[in-house]
Amino acid sequence: MLFPETISKILNVKYPIIQAPMFGVSTPEMTAAAAKAGCLGSLALADLSAEKSIELIQKTKKLTNQPFAANIFVHHIPEMTDELKQQYFKTKKYLENLAQENSIEVHLPDLEALKINSYHKQIDAIIDENCKILSFTFGNLDQKSIQKLKENETILIGTCTSVEEALELEKSGIDIICVQGIEAGGHRGSFVSENIPQIGGFSLLSQVYDSVKVPLIYAGGIYNGKTLKAAKELDAQGFQIGSLLLASRESSLQEFEKERLTNVTEKDIVLTKSFSGRYARGIKNKFIETIENSEYILPYPYQNKLTGEMRRIARNVKNSEFVNLWLGQSVNQFSENSTEEILKKLINDCN
Amino acid sequence: MLFPETISKILNVKYPIIQAPMFGVSTPEMTAAAAKAGCLGSLALADLSAEKSIELIQKTKKLTNQPFAANIFVHHIPEMTDELKQQYFKTKKYLENLAQENSIEVHLPDLEALKINSYHKQIDAIIDENCKILSFTFGNLDQKSIQKLKENETILIGTCTSVEEALELEKSGIDIICVQGIEAGGHRGSFVSENIPQIGGFSLLSQVYDSVKVPLIYAGGIYNGKTLKAAKELDAQGFQIGSLLLASRESSLQEFEKERLTNVTEKDIVLTKSFSGRYARGIKNKFIETIENSEYILPYPYQNKLTGEMRRIARNVKNSEFVNLWLGQSVNQFSENSTEEILKKLINDCN
Repeated sequence: MLFPETISKILNVKYPIIQAPMFGVSTPEMTAAAAKAGCLGSLALADLSAEKSIELIQKTKKLTNQPFAANIFVHHIPEMTDELKQQYFKTKKYLENLAQENSIEVHLPDLEALKINSYHKQIDAIIDENCKILSFTFGNLDQKSIQKLKENETILIGTCTSVEEALELEKSGIDIICVQGIEAGGHRGSFVSENIPQIGGFSLLSQVYDSVKVPLIYAGGIYNGKTLKAAKELDAQGFQIGSLLLASRESSLQEFEKERLTNVTEKDIVLTKSFSGRYARGIKNKFIETIENSEYILPYPYQNKLTGEMRRIARNVKNSEFVNLWLGQSVNQFSENSTEEILKKLINDCN
Repeated sequence: MLFPETISKILNVKYPIIQAPMFGVSTPEMTAAAAKAGCLGSLALADLSAEKSIELIQKTKKLTNQPFAANIFVHHIPEMTDELKQQYFKTKKYLENLAQENSIEVHLPDLEALKINSYHKQIDAIIDENCKILSFTFGNLDQKSIQKLKENETILIGTCTSVEEALELEKSGIDIICVQGIEAGGHRGSFVSENIPQIGGFSLLSQVYDSVKVPLIYAGGIYNGKTLKAAKELDAQGFQIGSLLLASRESSLQEFEKERLTNVTEKDIVLTKSFSGRYARGIKNKFIETIENSEYILPYPYQNKLTGEMRRIARNVKNSEFVNLWLGQSVNQFSENSTEEILKKLINDCN
């Protein structure tokens, strides 16, 4: 098939295929390998500090001279009220006990030790580093940031999970919208309402297309030629690939996590708030089953910060029951080839 | 585009497009009108008695000499335990009060007055009436029924919402599987596990195709040429259309319900167990908001029987807050043209 040209031209890449930013999984090496396949790599910067963001950007630049997208979390940080403080102490204690009962010796961070970064400093870093593509999720950028980025000729890619969110992004001048079908793995990008939309790709993509004029990238369930072509049929002009790269050579997943992927079935895949306080799609495990409907889920980013250290230790001891392993609804043979090979195979599969 | 031929040949229709059975909305007239467009009409018989089923089949036969599918609910009926009895009394009382507070004067049926029909009698009726296509949802037919229907050369169409369900249907000899994406309106066909699968069309259709050999119909989000073509890209060989026909001339929805459809937005559409005890997708209203997370939801079919009379009265007094209005995730301009015209327009839109 012929790939749509709009997004390739805007992003200056050969194919309008985007390697999804997958914080904790994707790496500068993956970003560079995607570029080598003629696709757009994404560098997942999540809510890292400006310093750490700069370090990763510089590392990526050393690996590729092609364009790539820096990707950040634009989440409204809830105020730390007395009530939330109490909830933090309670949750910390509960999670420490839970971890200990499961042989994970961990001291979770005290509230005072938390470093909550504002995305504004990341934006300054991205401008300083002269990154020309910024993608983001969990919210919309404020107008001042948008203006600053546009003055620097940065292409902006926002994420929506509903028509309402797409309209908000378009209205504020975002250049390209990534439409995240309910099939997608990892965190939901939802930001407008408390009840997250859960709209399947068929309905979401076609209706967002009918509602906005900016070009659309589709994310959610694409893992081969036919799923990509179906998204093209629904007027996507770009195609984002995440789960397909989970076990790739450049993925930072460990062997025990790649092993878990080989045994996964459709029943294992759930939406969960347990790890971060925001809904994300991944593989069910003991931690999710224990926490999901409990009172021990703080709002993002506090839950995310709190469980981070537990997950780090659990990963060290290869305990897959206490580690988040994000994955979309397309369960697949997860190739351990290079990202470049996997993406080239996908491109060939479209012909 | 060229429509796939496999299902048209099996079902003996011009186009492999199926008018979805929508109990309470579709009518014998709609079934006949779909046939007139060269599509397969479906006659929704739900869990009606054999007598009522025969009456509707005979009425449909008078309106068309084309093939149509009789559609039934194949639900495992839970035993009426003492605990369930208590729950029934409590729920009945609560719902009667709730209705009364909202000016709906209704006496809900006593447990002794409930008529719970077995689908086996419907199957005998379908065979006696020489219907040659039987579609079903909520479960799988028992082997004895399958054998009896096959001896009568009845084509069997089952419904799945997961790969696991598709495999079970194929294994028992079902001829065609309708794959119901999470986008679809109305009741979920899920039957294997307590936690219903919620898999979007992109992932579900492509993975069911990879797992079974029988031809697939896709249901969920198809409302125009491109959504149908996307399903074809994912190897669907038949295409089921429901929500698009909700306001059609042959729909039994009343004016106030059609009016509600014109104002609906993506945020209004939810999955709910409130009306029937089984999950169904439709428009949120006061009844759903009050009941959904309460203790007043009996298992299907008891909740369905209990709320039936309330809904009948609410419909009479045009109270859309206490009536179920099923709808999928593709919010659309709902045409009031005839079913024949709407389906012909869809077919033209595929060229």
